[in-house]
Amino acid sequence: MVDARFYPAGEPLTLSELERITGAQARSGTRGDRFVAVAPLAEAGPEHLVFVENRSYLERLASCGAGACLIHPDAAEAAPPGMALLLTRAPQRGFALAAAALHPPPPPSPGIAAGAIVDPTARVAPSSEIGPGAVVAARAEIGAGVVLGPNSVVGAGCRIGEGCRIGPCVSIANAIIGARVTIHAGARIGEDGFGVVPGRDGHVAIPQLGRVVIHDGADIGANTTIDRGALGDTVIGPGCFIDNLVQIGHNVRLGRGCIIAGQVGISGSTVVGDFVMMGGQAGLTGHLHIGDGARIAAQAGVMRDVEPGHSVGGSPSMPIAEHLRQAVVLRRLAKGKGA
Amino acid sequence: MVDARFYPAGEPLTLSELERITGAQARSGTRGDRFVAVAPLAEAGPEHLVFVENRSYLERLASCGAGACLIHPDAAEAAPPGMALLLTRAPQRGFALAAAALHPPPPPSPGIAAGAIVDPTARVAPSSEIGPGAVVAARAEIGAGVVLGPNSVVGAGCRIGEGCRIGPCVSIANAIIGARVTIHAGARIGEDGFGVVPGRDGHVAIPQLGRVVIHDGADIGANTTIDRGALGDTVIGPGCFIDNLVQIGHNVRLGRGCIIAGQVGISGSTVVGDFVMMGGQAGLTGHLHIGDGARIAAQAGVMRDVEPGHSVGGSPSMPIAEHLRQAVVLRRLAKGKGA
Amino acid sequence: MVDARFYPAGEPLTLSELERITGAQARSGTRGDRFVAVAPLAEAGPEHLVFVENRSYLERLASCGAGACLIHPDAAEAAPPGMALLLTRAPQRGFALAAAALHPPPPPSPGIAAGAIVDPTARVAPSSEIGPGAVVAARAEIGAGVVLGPNSVVGAGCRIGEGCRIGPCVSIANAIIGARVTIHAGARIGEDGFGVVPGRDGHVAIPQLGRVVIHDGADIGANTTIDRGALGDTVIGPGCFIDNLVQIGHNVRLGRGCIIAGQVGISGSTVVGDFVMMGGQAGLTGHLHIGDGARIAAQAGVMRDVEPGHSVGGSPSMPIAEHLRQAVVLRRLAKGKGA
Repeated sequence: MVDARFYPAGEPLTLSELERITGAQARSGTRGDRFVAVAPLAEAGPEHLVFVENRSYLERLASCGAGACLIHPDAAEAAPPGMALLLTRAPQRGFALAAAALHPPPPPSPGIAAGAIVDPTARVAPSSEIGPGAVVAARAEIGAGVVLGPNSVVGAGCRIGEGCRIGPCVSIANAIIGARVTIHAGARIGEDGFGVVPGRDGHVAIPQLGRVVIHDGADIGANTTIDRGALGDTVIGPGCFIDNLVQIGHNVRLGRGCIIAGQVGISGSTVVGDFVMMGGQAGLTGHLHIGDGARIAAQAGVMRDVEPGHSVGGSPSMPIAEHLRQAVVLRRLAKGKGA
Repeated sequence: MVDARFYPAGEPLTLSELERITGAQARSGTRGDRFVAVAPLAEAGPEHLVFVENRSYLERLASCGAGACLIHPDAAEAAPPGMALLLTRAPQRGFALAAAALHPPPPPSPGIAAGAIVDPTARVAPSSEIGPGAVVAARAEIGAGVVLGPNSVVGAGCRIGEGCRIGPCVSIANAIIGARVTIHAGARIGEDGFGVVPGRDGHVAIPQLGRVVIHDGADIGANTTIDRGALGDTVIGPGCFIDNLVQIGHNVRLGRGCIIAGQVGISGSTVVGDFVMMGGQAGLTGHLHIGDGARIAAQAGVMRDVEPGHSVGGSPSMPIAEHLRQAVVLRRLAKGKGA
Repeated sequence: MVDARFYPAGEPLTLSELERITGAQARSGTRGDRFVAVAPLAEAGPEHLVFVENRSYLERLASCGAGACLIHPDAAEAAPPGMALLLTRAPQRGFALAAAALHPPPPPSPGIAAGAIVDPTARVAPSSEIGPGAVVAARAEIGAGVVLGPNSVVGAGCRIGEGCRIGPCVSIANAIIGARVTIHAGARIGEDGFGVVPGRDGHVAIPQLGRVVIHDGADIGANTTIDRGALGDTVIGPGCFIDNLVQIGHNVRLGRGCIIAGQVGISGSTVVGDFVMMGGQAGLTGHLHIGDGARIAAQAGVMRDVEPGHSVGGSPSMPIAEHLRQAVVLRRLAKGKGA
């Protein structure tokens, strides 16, 4: 159940409001007509909205006490009598939209909080919230409706677009950030790329003189690091979702809508297309091209380009089918059965 | 040797005090009767306590100048004459207890330091220490004897139990934390889980409306990230030890006493039993069940449930014996010797 | 192109100044005689300096508009007429040196910024810059010309040598740091090592009573964690370069000039020689000896000592040639071709 300690109840929504928000088709029920929260199936009451995405949950739906349920039309008959239905081919998507409407994040509290330090040459929109202890350096620009979390730091000259939500203890430097970008706690945007000219009499660091550009709607996980370009930009495309503890090297370019799971590492200058998905702890060497829609399995070690739409796994990586076949062959051999 | 710059000497302890603290059985020596510090074998003098856990160190013990030594009774004859002994079947455990008594962490300096920002609706126990630049948000509750490090942030409504030690630059949100929990610098507790409904016309983030619950005595490493539940809780059981840079996904549940090494990643909704051990850089996919006492090798990629007490390794993971056999078979084949 | 928003132009340099800085041999050109910035080949004008390290870029050089180019003497004939040349066998090294001279980092702004908290017993050199919100604890010593970034924390008794550059949101504890060390945002220096004596009735944490010692000129990446010794020191040798999100366990010792890529993990008490290179996401277990000049491939899992100069890969790791041969053999077998 949603804990009101952390998620204060918003305005209740009617079934027809939920219909509009989710794009589903409503079928009225008798349990209630105002919904205050989303809930898991097992804990829901008449004031709650649930969803069923997966057939394996249909059994539990029969005994569910929720007032309303987002559900695929083909599964509607599994709902108990009296439960209102919101029929859609994408129940989870509808649920995400409804949950965002029922439990909106708190709006910005405009102003500069106690203990925040804003350089006089910075430009901060009056509607934005600068949290306690946050630091905004010279010539930085903070757009309308931005929330900058406590003890976060925006470096000199950075630009933060409207509606961005930046968590606590984040640092941003040498970066241009679009609108409605979310950056979670402790992320490091725009630090030095890792560039070294090795030499026995001492390595020489290559000055990193580029930027990070993050496009609209991207979402950056906690303690993730995105280095700035050496020359030119490191680019995160619009609508990318990047999980926690991910490392993005200098001059990497991600297209739109990539989904990158936790602890992935992408080395310098690798170019990733649109809608690429990467499983957790995958690693990519530098200077690769990863085609649109490619999928990279968890823990893969990618050392070659990947064609659009292809899936790879293993370390070093190979087509995923080959990776699975190798695992089978090796298992048979180790059992003394021959390849 | 312990550097007094960082670890000021505490009260000296007598042999009988050490006997009581460690649960060992004392045998007096002639070198000294008060002990001020622990030390490595090679550097110890009469005022120092050492330990020998491993037979390979016995040789060095003969020339060791320590006043006292924690040692297994069966090895006692290896000690030089005059050295006091503390006989126990668990010398390292005794050493840990003695070291904690000889070198206690500095007690809290009660009060709210300069530059800290505490919301007027927060409740902070008078005996707790709120470090310089720390932020405590609305309705948060900080128990007795807590140390909250410099520039750390406790979010709205969070509860921190008595005796917790929270390092610098930590952020905590949407979390209920028990007593005597240690959280090291830069850890991120309670950030958004990674929940996305993918779609070609734009992914939709699933609002994360759960919490993190950390039970008594847990220990969370530096820059580790523990996401809150999507609905419901992410749970860290009592007495778990989690190393640095670990990623714990939403709705993961760890039982009691798990030991998780650095850079491990556990994906969403995986349930881990009691006393499970995971080696560094291991990765677990989501929705798994890992039985009590299971052991997961370093760098393993776990994609299936693990039975209680079993050990797995490899990526994808398999029983550890099979993993080792496969390595042998593959080595032979690559040398042209057949499987 | 270098964005003046983030990298204000410094003083222009003449060809002979660049000759001196880079150690190259100059050959005059006609396009210009003062150089204000480095640039990529495709965007350079007469006021810019470029470099060509790799033969594959020579073709692009012909149409490049740069005023000057660092280039190997053997390739000089590929340069277009009028372009000044700086002839050297190490063009990239020259470029790094020139870029640092053309685009020096901003000098420290001496003094203690607003919101910074410096303990009265700390000693801070007047020429050093303590950023907004930074915290310097009791008895800490900050040398001349240090930059301590916003919201960073230097713990009690730490010593920071002259000319260090410490980014935002860093925390340092129990550490002695040499001169000209760079520490990027969010790095955690000197937290507890991961030492636990397991026990069914509760694990016992082993008090960590050592230090971190970082030698001159080392460079530590963003959100990297370097734990202090249990007893004794964790040591980072002079001139080591460590990338982001790296985990260095207690009592690890790195020699001089090691280069450690992102997300590497090194477990406790492993001793690494000079000039060792480690690829991204490699993991090393504890108590190993890695010889001078060894190379560890990305994602390798190292469980045994590595001889000086040797290269290893795979998990568990083996000589790199064997690792590659195994991959070939397994590929053949999975295709039904026999080993």
